[in-house]
Amino acid sequence: MKGISYKTEWVEFPDIEPLCKKLGIPPTSKKADGSDLYTLPAIHDPSTGVYISDSTLIAEYLEKTYPDTPQVFPYHTHALQAAFTAAFVNNISALWNFIVPAASNKLNPRSQEYFRRTREKSFGKVLEDIAPKGEAAIVEWERFKDGLGKADAWYAKNGGQGPFLLGETPSWGDIIVAGYLNWTRVVWGDDSPQWNDISSWNNGRWVAITEALKKYEK
Amino acid sequence: MKGISYKTEWVEFPDIEPLCKKLGIPPTSKKADGSDLYTLPAIHDPSTGVYISDSTLIAEYLEKTYPDTPQVFPYHTHALQAAFTAAFVNNISALWNFIVPAASNKLNPRSQEYFRRTREKSFGKVLEDIAPKGEAAIVEWERFKDGLGKADAWYAKNGGQGPFLLGETPSWGDIIVAGYLNWTRVVWGDDSPQWNDISSWNNGRWVAITEALKKYEK
Repeated sequence: MKGISYKTEWVEFPDIEPLCKKLGIPPTSKKADGSDLYTLPAIHDPSTGVYISDSTLIAEYLEKTYPDTPQVFPYHTHALQAAFTAAFVNNISALWNFIVPAASNKLNPRSQEYFRRTREKSFGKVLEDIAPKGEAAIVEWERFKDGLGKADAWYAKNGGQGPFLLGETPSWGDIIVAGYLNWTRVVWGDDSPQWNDISSWNNGRWVAITEALKKYEK
Repeated sequence: MKGISYKTEWVEFPDIEPLCKKLGIPPTSKKADGSDLYTLPAIHDPSTGVYISDSTLIAEYLEKTYPDTPQVFPYHTHALQAAFTAAFVNNISALWNFIVPAASNKLNPRSQEYFRRTREKSFGKVLEDIAPKGEAAIVEWERFKDGLGKADAWYAKNGGQGPFLLGETPSWGDIIVAGYLNWTRVVWGDDSPQWNDISSWNNGRWVAITEALKKYEK
């Protein structure tokens, strides 16, 4: 099966909203004050003229428009994948307070200023006070581990025929999982205590999934 | 595809644990005090001699042992079905306080006495005080509706090709959904305000799923 060729354009945080408005890329949700929230990823498909945002909508669009390319929702599993994704994100809710402040360090100065300002507003505290500390850090990191443990129990049902939810066939839920895990690896680094910890959990399941999907990364 | 013939034996609540212990049917979880909890359904398969409990384990056993019968985990979706089931049950958590006391009324006297005694112990209050009342009842019933609404959004991804998670093909998650919804219909009755309410939600999705699965009921 063939792939779809593409070109990536990186956009700094403060430029996302003006760019989306200029190109007519729709907002993906609402801010706390009720105004439109614009997020990336978004794509432009020059062969159809379409601009589209929200990773799930992008995947669904590509799947429908290019049915001869590898499917990420095989066997009509769209509904099951949506439930899995919601449940997985809910499972790892304890991750946010750890990773949001850490993620700030990976940004270019313009994005970092924007990220700090908007996140401090939404969390109601300075970035340095978001991550739990001391005993709370131990409890919350354990809660993150337990959440991944629940997802591990789901994955364990795949019959051991492959690292993916459907066994040998990768699908949307695996991409979501790998996306979050790669985020932790990139933010904290390959040799960080955090990534070492995550790598050791659930018999290395999380490393195995990200490794198995690597061939689809550019 | 052929089905599997079976005979149902109904067991009153106080007889479940002694019967399971006598036959060697394993417990499915633990009570609050750490002792074994025995629950139904359980099956005995005379062709293999197996006794097995826990509805998911029963389904997995039957699927593995009788591969020529209709599949409830088609396309290796075991892991996705497990995630869906956990997420769905979590979504409808507000239902419990309404239905547990109501369910008591449907039981035979011996089971009713057992049910009242054990549930009052686990809830820490008399059955009559478990269901929310007044303003709290409105808020909690709305929370139950919102939980089903989230599941509706997942189902809406099925492409409208059928009432089921996978579209035209019924699978485990649909059986779980129909099981809970039929429970509410049986406990409250076809003409109850509760079932009328549920029937009206999400464009009749919940009635459609239970109706479409009716042909598999004995």
